[in-house]
Amino acid sequence: MTDGPAGWPLHDTTVRGFASDNYSGAHPEVLAALVAANGGHQTSYGSDDYTLRLKEEMRRLFGDGVESYPVFNGTGANVLSLQSLIPRWGAVICAASAHINVDENGAPERVGGMKLLAVPTEDGKLTPELIDREAWGWGDEHRAQPLAVSITQTTELGTLYSIEETRAITEHAHSLGMRVHMDGARLANAAAALGVPATAFTRDAGIDILSFGGTKNGMLFGECVVALAPEAAHGLDYLRKMDMQLASKMRFVSAQFLALLEGDLWLRSAAHSNAMAARLRAAVEGLEGVELTQETQSNGVFAILPAGVADRLRERFRFYDWDASRREVRWMCSFDTTEADVDAFAAALREELARVP
Amino acid sequence: MTDGPAGWPLHDTTVRGFASDNYSGAHPEVLAALVAANGGHQTSYGSDDYTLRLKEEMRRLFGDGVESYPVFNGTGANVLSLQSLIPRWGAVICAASAHINVDENGAPERVGGMKLLAVPTEDGKLTPELIDREAWGWGDEHRAQPLAVSITQTTELGTLYSIEETRAITEHAHSLGMRVHMDGARLANAAAALGVPATAFTRDAGIDILSFGGTKNGMLFGECVVALAPEAAHGLDYLRKMDMQLASKMRFVSAQFLALLEGDLWLRSAAHSNAMAARLRAAVEGLEGVELTQETQSNGVFAILPAGVADRLRERFRFYDWDASRREVRWMCSFDTTEADVDAFAAALREELARVP
Amino acid sequence: MTDGPAGWPLHDTTVRGFASDNYSGAHPEVLAALVAANGGHQTSYGSDDYTLRLKEEMRRLFGDGVESYPVFNGTGANVLSLQSLIPRWGAVICAASAHINVDENGAPERVGGMKLLAVPTEDGKLTPELIDREAWGWGDEHRAQPLAVSITQTTELGTLYSIEETRAITEHAHSLGMRVHMDGARLANAAAALGVPATAFTRDAGIDILSFGGTKNGMLFGECVVALAPEAAHGLDYLRKMDMQLASKMRFVSAQFLALLEGDLWLRSAAHSNAMAARLRAAVEGLEGVELTQETQSNGVFAILPAGVADRLRERFRFYDWDASRREVRWMCSFDTTEADVDAFAAALREELARVP
Amino acid sequence: MTDGPAGWPLHDTTVRGFASDNYSGAHPEVLAALVAANGGHQTSYGSDDYTLRLKEEMRRLFGDGVESYPVFNGTGANVLSLQSLIPRWGAVICAASAHINVDENGAPERVGGMKLLAVPTEDGKLTPELIDREAWGWGDEHRAQPLAVSITQTTELGTLYSIEETRAITEHAHSLGMRVHMDGARLANAAAALGVPATAFTRDAGIDILSFGGTKNGMLFGECVVALAPEAAHGLDYLRKMDMQLASKMRFVSAQFLALLEGDLWLRSAAHSNAMAARLRAAVEGLEGVELTQETQSNGVFAILPAGVADRLRERFRFYDWDASRREVRWMCSFDTTEADVDAFAAALREELARVP
Repeated sequence: MTDGPAGWPLHDTTVRGFASDNYSGAHPEVLAALVAANGGHQTSYGSDDYTLRLKEEMRRLFGDGVESYPVFNGTGANVLSLQSLIPRWGAVICAASAHINVDENGAPERVGGMKLLAVPTEDGKLTPELIDREAWGWGDEHRAQPLAVSITQTTELGTLYSIEETRAITEHAHSLGMRVHMDGARLANAAAALGVPATAFTRDAGIDILSFGGTKNGMLFGECVVALAPEAAHGLDYLRKMDMQLASKMRFVSAQFLALLEGDLWLRSAAHSNAMAARLRAAVEGLEGVELTQETQSNGVFAILPAGVADRLRERFRFYDWDASRREVRWMCSFDTTEADVDAFAAALREELARVP
Repeated sequence: MTDGPAGWPLHDTTVRGFASDNYSGAHPEVLAALVAANGGHQTSYGSDDYTLRLKEEMRRLFGDGVESYPVFNGTGANVLSLQSLIPRWGAVICAASAHINVDENGAPERVGGMKLLAVPTEDGKLTPELIDREAWGWGDEHRAQPLAVSITQTTELGTLYSIEETRAITEHAHSLGMRVHMDGARLANAAAALGVPATAFTRDAGIDILSFGGTKNGMLFGECVVALAPEAAHGLDYLRKMDMQLASKMRFVSAQFLALLEGDLWLRSAAHSNAMAARLRAAVEGLEGVELTQETQSNGVFAILPAGVADRLRERFRFYDWDASRREVRWMCSFDTTEADVDAFAAALREELARVP
Repeated sequence: MTDGPAGWPLHDTTVRGFASDNYSGAHPEVLAALVAANGGHQTSYGSDDYTLRLKEEMRRLFGDGVESYPVFNGTGANVLSLQSLIPRWGAVICAASAHINVDENGAPERVGGMKLLAVPTEDGKLTPELIDREAWGWGDEHRAQPLAVSITQTTELGTLYSIEETRAITEHAHSLGMRVHMDGARLANAAAALGVPATAFTRDAGIDILSFGGTKNGMLFGECVVALAPEAAHGLDYLRKMDMQLASKMRFVSAQFLALLEGDLWLRSAAHSNAMAARLRAAVEGLEGVELTQETQSNGVFAILPAGVADRLRERFRFYDWDASRREVRWMCSFDTTEADVDAFAAALREELARVP
Repeated sequence: MTDGPAGWPLHDTTVRGFASDNYSGAHPEVLAALVAANGGHQTSYGSDDYTLRLKEEMRRLFGDGVESYPVFNGTGANVLSLQSLIPRWGAVICAASAHINVDENGAPERVGGMKLLAVPTEDGKLTPELIDREAWGWGDEHRAQPLAVSITQTTELGTLYSIEETRAITEHAHSLGMRVHMDGARLANAAAALGVPATAFTRDAGIDILSFGGTKNGMLFGECVVALAPEAAHGLDYLRKMDMQLASKMRFVSAQFLALLEGDLWLRSAAHSNAMAARLRAAVEGLEGVELTQETQSNGVFAILPAGVADRLRERFRFYDWDASRREVRWMCSFDTTEADVDAFAAALREELARVP
């Protein structure tokens, strides 16, 4: 293999920040898998040897009978999952902060044809009580029918559902005739944080269908819809195609996932990014002027900073505002975040805080 | 970099067939680019250095002012392109054999919300006269309004539009107030076959928007919507997101495209696959029992075989029926098809033909 | 009741033409029913006494177990019916000349989210053989799945399916796992022409769901979806609401239908309009220069006229071109067409023909 | 005209309640107009003399240049209006209690393809400050773009926007590049309550497009989309057809509207229903156990009742719960509500309250 076009890389590969786990690249073992899976001809659209192996591995992970559908991205995985659970007249209860509600430019509504019934939460987590605010009106033709619940694990706010919390939701939803989807864009971070087998907080906890995230955990791209209760999910093959999420050279999605699962790379990477966030929190907790707004249960830290601090700090490290109206920022750690990165960032923050009058 | 997981590759990398240019893997230079673009953090969702460079390269290729939008796959590129050209009440005239009409499970209709007005053709190519069969009824609210034409270059039947043929279509369409999309899933094969600069048979020939294919030409995945007449294309940024075609780590799509454009790899690969198809045609033309059904102007050969031959031949080489009702098959060549592959296949065909009673 | 606003009517109520059965107004008995159903309060959205009675009457007409859903118009009835039969990935086989394909501005695709697989026909009628042109590809995720057939009775070309022809279609479709919808915008004309009970050529002939037309048969507006095989139709209550076809004061749709069914007004009106078309055909058949292009089996006559004749004739009577490219026109009769209307029209045609050089 | 089918009416025309202004029938003058507009042939789909006259009358009412599009129902009017204002990637800010958000089974999302950004309110009314909670994120491709605001006049809670309040909203929205839709299902009640010309609180107050309600004000069915700023509304003709809201015999929608406008019947009826609600409020205000929850500014009264009272009262008069969780009920008056109705209802309420221990 060559070294890429002359003059490459085009960017400074030593620069890392805290903007997003999407800013990082691919894990070297993932790239190695791509290279190893290359060459020769393989059946397209999912009948290749890597996708077949992936289906087996997913069954090893989540139990017999689950069905797997690799797709391109998280929005695709979520819309596809939810469409498979509900009929044309269905609605989905979700947290107001859910990615499907705020970050997908209406794809669930526009492509999926579903209505979202969004409930405000404190920490990004639904509860049976919060679900009940929108779980009503079945049989009333005027109301989009609440037939599914979608929860994000770990949440967009870095918080984590315990197994018990998840089970309380799924039991409640099922008792009301609703199915439950888990948006696991950061499933690995949840698995690492909970320290239990993947199936324990998903299938065994009553989740019906899962968006298993790969991109934020070291893949170049790619997620996988896993139908944990296949009898609840309809038409996934057809929906994936019409939702424009069917990769022709699917071996290259599946090979990346296989690399993640190999030797539990997915868990090792996630445990590392979680640990980096914990290190960051420990370094900034108690600093005068820093108000931590969410628990740090996975790979993100949320904080309110004194006026001006964020902008000056951003001249040295990239990160995003979360709620600019109250000066809340979000710091995300990734598989490639180093202890030195965290320490340098915390030091920089202390410097900027010291400059606050 | 490691060599991939233990026991890999999972497939026999020496096996190649004539089933599809999607069966081949990635070109080694494309993989090398991925590796070179890795490392460090880069802004997600398209503000990275590779995507910025790609936009420049596309302007070098197609002229000042064009806008580029990398996406995941061909269906996505097509739906996105067409949505940007027409309002909610628009319809698209296309060949009945067009990929958008027969191979995308209704994504143009279901996701794009458009009606296709499909016209039967002999060779997969539209003409002004064929377009006129559906180009009528403007102002009639009962009729989905024909506001765009979509042509495929090279076509699903391996045929090629000349510059003059394309210009006749675009001039006719424009004179009727319609815009023109080119599905260039195999644009490279067309460019190589025509032997002219890319802009000559696209932008200069009046095409308004282009799906520039990468996957079939040696990328792992990835296509690029190129708005050649940006004033005709509306909302591509937003549409790409809501159509679930926005890659977070977009550098990895763009880097692949840059590798294709580097040193004209895209044209070299396409010229090779075209040449392999020509070699195959030459080897089988005139064989008793073989009826070639389309001109071989790019990387595919279409033929009718005597009963039983295709199935026996398929035991040695993979390929697809095209129209089983008349025993028509399709043989596709790829960037990695070798002369030896072609010669062995032709020899096998001759053997099987000899066994016909 | 008053006589309407001062100065009314605004139009000449003595003028009738042959443009469309939509040009006529409401049958006086239908208006009388509206007046009789007025007054007092009635539950909205379909729980009123008139809608409940209508459901009973539909069961009397089509047999026990059928479910009825009054809606506003024909496009609504068709889209609603078809959506209830097929999942999100379904496609519908129809004649190329079907109203759903050519006269609904893509509502089936855009609102219904379905793909239409349109087959050219000679006379607007599908057959098992014609259906087979598109009835293939089940299980192939790339192909919109053919899961329903839609036929129009009587057709847009004035032709009629016999019971045997309908049964051949439904048996064929059912054997392939497809359901069958009948667009009965002119169901009354078919019933009158066939001279059999309504159920004989619909439910007993294997039709699964029916758009029962009212507007063209003397109602002000209104159609009724009748689920003849309710187990095949899903979510009609919800779909009707989300498709914006649920009338709040539904008693006024249902009362009109009850008026049509009362004393078989629907059949008497349709028999009359059929007879007027037969009279017109008899009057013009054999005239030099007049080529009748379709059989006259219901209330429309289709003819090709010498150049110039149609435009001059239109100065005296309204009617539409059907296929202007070959000078084909369409003459429609209505419940209020009189023998004198027909005779005057035929005389005018003879005069204009006599002026042809 | 006859008296309707034998045995009619099927219901007791002396029974009226307080359930909904949709429970009442048609105003006799509206029915008279239907009868007067009948007979003869009129061009279908909106080129008839009644629709042409209606367009003139709407210009007389709202000023030169406005364009009118009669449709079937309120959901249709709302979805059509909003689609015409925004592109495929648009979102609409509305009150959480808006009919489009809670009572249309997701039609805005599913048929209109739009995302609703719903804001909780106290009284069903938006303000610039409430709008700002969702008016952000333009240019961010991840966010459905807030490009329109929809307000309901009078609101679903019986409250009324003053001219100043409306103008504050439209000026704010326009300054942010957003258009404003008014859902005027009860526009007449607002006009009567404000006592100003219709244009004063709509077009002159900056509203861009209006759903002008007819059904709740004495029509059998029918609403009218009025493009007050036609340059802001795109494709209404085509959208109306594809949204399945185009009536073939449109004269019968338009004639009803003309009857409403004739001699200001629309205002007289609305002033009456408003007065009946005021009478009801006066009769129940201050009764022990009755908590009135909203101002009574149009034709509805909202109240919290002691446990058990509503159910017993409902045995004598129909009405709906509004928020059963807090025992809140809604009482609606209609054009045909009499003073005696109100007095009898108030007396019944007093009786039931007296029975509360």
